[in-house]
Amino acid sequence: MPDLSRRTCELPSSPIRKLAPLAAKAKQEGKTVYHLNIGQPDIPTPQAFMDGVRNADIDVLAYSPSPGLPETLAALRGYYAHHGIDLATEQLCVTIGGSEAFTFAMKAAMDPGDEVIIPEPFYPNYRGYACLTTTTVVPITTVAEEGFHLPAAEAIEAKITDRTRAFLFSNPGNPTGVVYTEDELKRIVRLATKHDLFVISDEVYREFVYDGETHTSMLSLPEVAQRVIVTDSLSKRFSVCGARIGCIVSRNAEVMTAALRLGQARLSPPVVEEFAAAAALRLSPAEYVEPMIAAFEQRRNVVYDAVSEMPGVLGYKPAGAFYMAPEFPVDDAEKFVEWMLADFDLDGETTMLAPAEGFYSTPGRGRSEARIAYVLNEEELARAMTCLAAGLAAYPGRTS
Amino acid sequence: MPDLSRRTCELPSSPIRKLAPLAAKAKQEGKTVYHLNIGQPDIPTPQAFMDGVRNADIDVLAYSPSPGLPETLAALRGYYAHHGIDLATEQLCVTIGGSEAFTFAMKAAMDPGDEVIIPEPFYPNYRGYACLTTTTVVPITTVAEEGFHLPAAEAIEAKITDRTRAFLFSNPGNPTGVVYTEDELKRIVRLATKHDLFVISDEVYREFVYDGETHTSMLSLPEVAQRVIVTDSLSKRFSVCGARIGCIVSRNAEVMTAALRLGQARLSPPVVEEFAAAAALRLSPAEYVEPMIAAFEQRRNVVYDAVSEMPGVLGYKPAGAFYMAPEFPVDDAEKFVEWMLADFDLDGETTMLAPAEGFYSTPGRGRSEARIAYVLNEEELARAMTCLAAGLAAYPGRTS
Repeated sequence: MPDLSRRTCELPSSPIRKLAPLAAKAKQEGKTVYHLNIGQPDIPTPQAFMDGVRNADIDVLAYSPSPGLPETLAALRGYYAHHGIDLATEQLCVTIGGSEAFTFAMKAAMDPGDEVIIPEPFYPNYRGYACLTTTTVVPITTVAEEGFHLPAAEAIEAKITDRTRAFLFSNPGNPTGVVYTEDELKRIVRLATKHDLFVISDEVYREFVYDGETHTSMLSLPEVAQRVIVTDSLSKRFSVCGARIGCIVSRNAEVMTAALRLGQARLSPPVVEEFAAAAALRLSPAEYVEPMIAAFEQRRNVVYDAVSEMPGVLGYKPAGAFYMAPEFPVDDAEKFVEWMLADFDLDGETTMLAPAEGFYSTPGRGRSEARIAYVLNEEELARAMTCLAAGLAAYPGRTS
Repeated sequence: MPDLSRRTCELPSSPIRKLAPLAAKAKQEGKTVYHLNIGQPDIPTPQAFMDGVRNADIDVLAYSPSPGLPETLAALRGYYAHHGIDLATEQLCVTIGGSEAFTFAMKAAMDPGDEVIIPEPFYPNYRGYACLTTTTVVPITTVAEEGFHLPAAEAIEAKITDRTRAFLFSNPGNPTGVVYTEDELKRIVRLATKHDLFVISDEVYREFVYDGETHTSMLSLPEVAQRVIVTDSLSKRFSVCGARIGCIVSRNAEVMTAALRLGQARLSPPVVEEFAAAAALRLSPAEYVEPMIAAFEQRRNVVYDAVSEMPGVLGYKPAGAFYMAPEFPVDDAEKFVEWMLADFDLDGETTMLAPAEGFYSTPGRGRSEARIAYVLNEEELARAMTCLAAGLAAYPGRTS
């Protein structure tokens, strides 16, 4: 039989999903598993979205225009305007989730063999799509001790070669929860300008910022208006991960022409969800997003306080998204996560994290780290943290 | 500013959609445009599908498993079993339309520089995805005189090199309506076996076969069970083009492992439509598909009879799908289509076709051909054919 392509053979399996069979087994055996391994919030989807689904008045469920339904694009423009970002309709293209926005950005910016610089740890699907587009990820390592903030400009610049085409990051950050400071964003702006790079900014967690801090969109920085490609998604902000509605945004007309062609190549986003997304986007922040963010800030506090008290764990206070990636006093976080599922329980309960090694590109890095996604309510999170602390204390592979 | 990637610059814009602005202008000016340019049927979506949408009982619209919801996979298994094809669940993966199924197949089979053999004319998105995966399309030209059937084995074999990885085709065919004979399928089987190739079979028009003929799925040929990758879609068979639900099917476990990883990389299909698709797939053929196919056979007859009577037009009787790609007595079919929109009307009405040159990979081929998609009711089709005949008679670029 013919061999599969090298690119799919090299495609990493998801570090977030690959231990799912062990979790399924634990649940079959009657254990309660607190799923802090996957960024799937428990927050109910807004009524306006589900009403949008139910009220879809459709005789023939036809293709929408490739860049999206006019009403969805109009609702997106309104959403960005509320965030102080004025966009023309042709600067937006509806995508099938943030995932597709990201693939459009990568395909538009990168040819085979090109290099993209990404601060690590990073969202693992970045690597997957780099693999599929046969481009090379060049990591800049960031560390828990510094709250995963960026290194100095020189350290970043040392990674730039004549094949470097783009600087890519999520802000607020997955899996770290870092929110970049204005100083860090200016560092990126200067380097992108000096070295003629695209800036691909994944802003799906835009509103998930705590402690009164604010998020700065790359779309609000005029110096790089023509370099910036923002990938975005409704998944987290409206708890509609299953809707697969996102968008790609750029003021660079060539990028948007490429996005349109890429959109034509897949014909149309899912239309029922496009209608429903327009309804959700018209909600005022006070109706849905703001109370949700307040709830996540409380959850962040529960996790941060609990982790701070776990002996030997190197934590930090994540300022955004709904993740934290502490370093644990264990030999290998993947083995620890497996052990928590297979060999441990506290009164029939256990906690599942995502081992962080798959979030790194540098071999061997992150082996003692794991990502906590605080996507459950405070009570469940508190119990999950109690299980985690007890598991850590009992784990035979403990290193300190 | 940085240049876009070569692969997106080379990405062809859709020959089906690129004349849309001219059509919009014609409609603004008050003309009625019969859209026979795009494969968007007018058939109402089944009530069962829309009820599935409306009745979706969802609190949190979460990701589904990457290969699809269990109920959707079960319904797909039932659908294939009805067609005499027994599949295990892991031989199926739900995709975001047939488009994604096709990208999964291409990514699994092809590395940059590899070659895929495709009978031309072919569905233009095949070339788009070949471009995006930086693989090379090697066309086998088929011709209207032979009803677009395949050439002899020797002509196909002459195109096979040591970079050839797959043989790809749609059957029933888009844009030709050809349905391959058993003899043709055996030709493909022998060549794929002899030269160790994958066979990527696009079967989205499986049921669209007329005159009592039958369609043979590549999944029913045991000699190539490990070579075959079928791409499929609910779009046409349930008139749900906007739902974006398809699937990839293979009995090759490595292919399905690759599909699973590719599925994880985009997380999930659109979940509301997955639920609704399961409901549509459980309909008996007599409830929906059979009467629809009978209607399309009547439409095929209207178009075939009308085209047969147009002087100078080289037609043939298409046996399947809902397309026909006649050769017209015109200098350039694209100019003719533009003229029909901009400069012609018959009592305020005109007809829009898809110029066929974009369906060919060989430069210059198909310049006098255009695809007719018979996706309107018989009455409208008859008027559309009358407009077409009148336009052809009046067109200044007529060649005979």
